[in-house]
Amino acid sequence: MPREISSFSNSTVKMIRALRDKKARREHGLFLAEGLRIIAEARDEGQLPQLIAFSEKGAAHPLAAEIIAETEAAGGDAIVTSPDILSKMSGKDNPQMLLGAYAQPDTSLSAIDRSSADIWFVGEKLRDPGNIGTILRTGDAVGAGGLILIDDCADPFSVETVRASMGALFTQGIAQARWDEFLPWLRCGDGQLVGTSLNTDFDYADAPYKAPCFLLIGNESQGLPKEYEDACDLLVKIPMAGKADSLNAAIAAAVTAFQVRSHWRNR
Amino acid sequence: MPREISSFSNSTVKMIRALRDKKARREHGLFLAEGLRIIAEARDEGQLPQLIAFSEKGAAHPLAAEIIAETEAAGGDAIVTSPDILSKMSGKDNPQMLLGAYAQPDTSLSAIDRSSADIWFVGEKLRDPGNIGTILRTGDAVGAGGLILIDDCADPFSVETVRASMGALFTQGIAQARWDEFLPWLRCGDGQLVGTSLNTDFDYADAPYKAPCFLLIGNESQGLPKEYEDACDLLVKIPMAGKADSLNAAIAAAVTAFQVRSHWRNR
Repeated sequence: MPREISSFSNSTVKMIRALRDKKARREHGLFLAEGLRIIAEARDEGQLPQLIAFSEKGAAHPLAAEIIAETEAAGGDAIVTSPDILSKMSGKDNPQMLLGAYAQPDTSLSAIDRSSADIWFVGEKLRDPGNIGTILRTGDAVGAGGLILIDDCADPFSVETVRASMGALFTQGIAQARWDEFLPWLRCGDGQLVGTSLNTDFDYADAPYKAPCFLLIGNESQGLPKEYEDACDLLVKIPMAGKADSLNAAIAAAVTAFQVRSHWRNR
Repeated sequence: MPREISSFSNSTVKMIRALRDKKARREHGLFLAEGLRIIAEARDEGQLPQLIAFSEKGAAHPLAAEIIAETEAAGGDAIVTSPDILSKMSGKDNPQMLLGAYAQPDTSLSAIDRSSADIWFVGEKLRDPGNIGTILRTGDAVGAGGLILIDDCADPFSVETVRASMGALFTQGIAQARWDEFLPWLRCGDGQLVGTSLNTDFDYADAPYKAPCFLLIGNESQGLPKEYEDACDLLVKIPMAGKADSLNAAIAAAVTAFQVRSHWRNR
């Protein structure tokens, strides 16, 4: 049976609320996902939350009721509470009627099976949580294996990232590594490292991509450091027609990845 | 000479601060852009702010000094103030050292010259200001003419949109219209209306695009209404490889637009 919480100062309420903060997420090894759509997607991937919180209205949906029952059967904590307390937990004025706290997966490179997909995203110092989530969502759509975050990226388990990923956080692999760990790992197996850059004449539409292809996306304002470009097997350029000389990082990642896939489909 | 403002309660400070609000933007016919990069891009397009506010440090940059002088020569208002007051004006903790308030352009359909570009974006009920700005930025990169916002979209002149557009708000055309104004306008001249949809088998990579091509992007969560799909000359589908069945709206717009351009380049 779900336990009922009616106090704002309840310790579980405080702990969940704290998960909006990176330090607390690390400490508890948990992250938050909101809403039936994402929580159902996670369940379809075999992932249940350690804790699920909901309003009576939220639990009334048959799919929600099913996931709540499965979470309890798996030993998870189920909490029924008021919309106001859910709102406090999620930090949103209009909270979703369902919140899940999930165990953070292992994000070491050893958890990545490069043979499982032909395209991988590699993000370097990505600072915008929305971009990270959008790249994960795109990765799911394009059939990528996941996203490897290099150096000091924003936390992939933030509420903003989970939301922008639309559930792809549960379907895509995620690793975090320093560049000097990533490069030796990459070179221990198959893998073409492809950088998007303005410092090349190779058009992204005609480039000789090889699977598994690791698409390296640079920081939102600085792009890739020269040393990282030099380590690439291939640099490709998306030709710019206008006044600007750059695309949003998640857009550049998507345009390149769909081109890579389209290139292979046409062979 | 710039006038100095040292009071938080100055009426100009209050007016600029209010421009974060859509109603005030409408009332004053102004919108805000922050930072030298965007303000310089606007100037390169021949657009100077009606009011420019800066700290002494901001004015020290030679390019900023040039734009401040040009703004004054054109009859604009130049204001030197403290970083704290700039921060109040922009609503940001770390304000840019330079803020401009620009006249909102005419956004009627009659301001759009469809023969000036081969690709146009049309957004239907886009709610996310970041998506609108990112589509404008992508439009600049792909050589589009601009973005036509249909029905109840977020305001294209919000601070978030201007920021995400990275200056493309000044290089791309922008119109706002109801669907029942847009469609007759479109049919009064050349123009292929292309919808991205799951309700078709036409692969976006092999479709017969014709210029000027109007790419219709649906609302972030609902996609296009059936009536709008029915009005399209062509529906195309971006094949999905993963669990999810959709892309972020700005990503779908970019992937399709770059494919259209690539299709034409290869003819």
